[in-house]
Amino acid sequence: MKKILCLYAHPNPQRSRANRKIVESLTPLANLSFRPLYELYPEFYIDVKREQQLLQEHDLIFFQHPFYWYSMPPLLKLWMDSVLEFDFAYGPKGRALVGKDFLLSITTGGPLDSYAPSGYNRFPLSAFFPPYEQTARLCGMQWHEPLVLHHSTRVSEDTLLQHAESVRQRLVQLSTGAQ
Amino acid sequence: MKKILCLYAHPNPQRSRANRKIVESLTPLANLSFRPLYELYPEFYIDVKREQQLLQEHDLIFFQHPFYWYSMPPLLKLWMDSVLEFDFAYGPKGRALVGKDFLLSITTGGPLDSYAPSGYNRFPLSAFFPPYEQTARLCGMQWHEPLVLHHSTRVSEDTLLQHAESVRQRLVQLSTGAQ
Repeated sequence: MKKILCLYAHPNPQRSRANRKIVESLTPLANLSFRPLYELYPEFYIDVKREQQLLQEHDLIFFQHPFYWYSMPPLLKLWMDSVLEFDFAYGPKGRALVGKDFLLSITTGGPLDSYAPSGYNRFPLSAFFPPYEQTARLCGMQWHEPLVLHHSTRVSEDTLLQHAESVRQRLVQLSTGAQ
Repeated sequence: MKKILCLYAHPNPQRSRANRKIVESLTPLANLSFRPLYELYPEFYIDVKREQQLLQEHDLIFFQHPFYWYSMPPLLKLWMDSVLEFDFAYGPKGRALVGKDFLLSITTGGPLDSYAPSGYNRFPLSAFFPPYEQTARLCGMQWHEPLVLHHSTRVSEDTLLQHAESVRQRLVQLSTGAQ
């Protein structure tokens, strides 16, 4: 079974409702390593060697975070800029991630219909994914369709728990080799 | 003449060649406030009230940064997430930026032809701009076509100086009301 590296980036984990439920549904998975970045690196000082070692020990790289300004929280960006180094993750000698899977899971404040030309976010949500997708692809990882919980502060408890369960199931599916 | 707020985000300003030349060409502008974020906030602790006050005092918001992993450096993302607050920059009472101009200027390591389906970056560069554009638009700012220096570590000194001058000219043009 594939080993999952869960990079969880919520700047205020105590104040999270949706992301907390999602990660709570995942942490019992025996093949998942849970890395709550804001708890591990509150001073924005990342242990690059440790993070690179973890990447090498896992097969499926999974990001869970709230979607802020159409992108990721800053500490996760710092993780990317620091850890995905030239000649480690890309470049002529950068083969460390080749063949691994990459899966993104986000929560958005806005409802689904806001992500459309007629909505206040104007773009379909998929228009904001190229930075993630191309990062994964430049590193030689397989990109999978992201998982999204819209309107995350307003959804019912039932919807939230169903979504959390669907994220767990997708990770189980991918980690057993399904696509 | 419009007042320009230049938010400069280079994680290693001492090691920069291209971005340094560009900002050196801009700082003599009398109507430009230069804010080197990594020097102002090396500990990633942003003075939100001060930054909001500066936004209100300026008409043209300008980002200058190297393009890392198809996006911005983490401190600039922290600035966005912290400073562009609900009911300040967006939301029912969030009118502080309405009607201002927004201009992005970046340097990329990759050459122009890498940003194409046939290139190693696979996407046209414009595919990575929606997070910036929609941030500007949600805040009611006018979006302008970004300025780009490709292959920034390899270009000749002449090309670099010409590009720096073209950035300066574009800012002068926008700050005198041209489009």
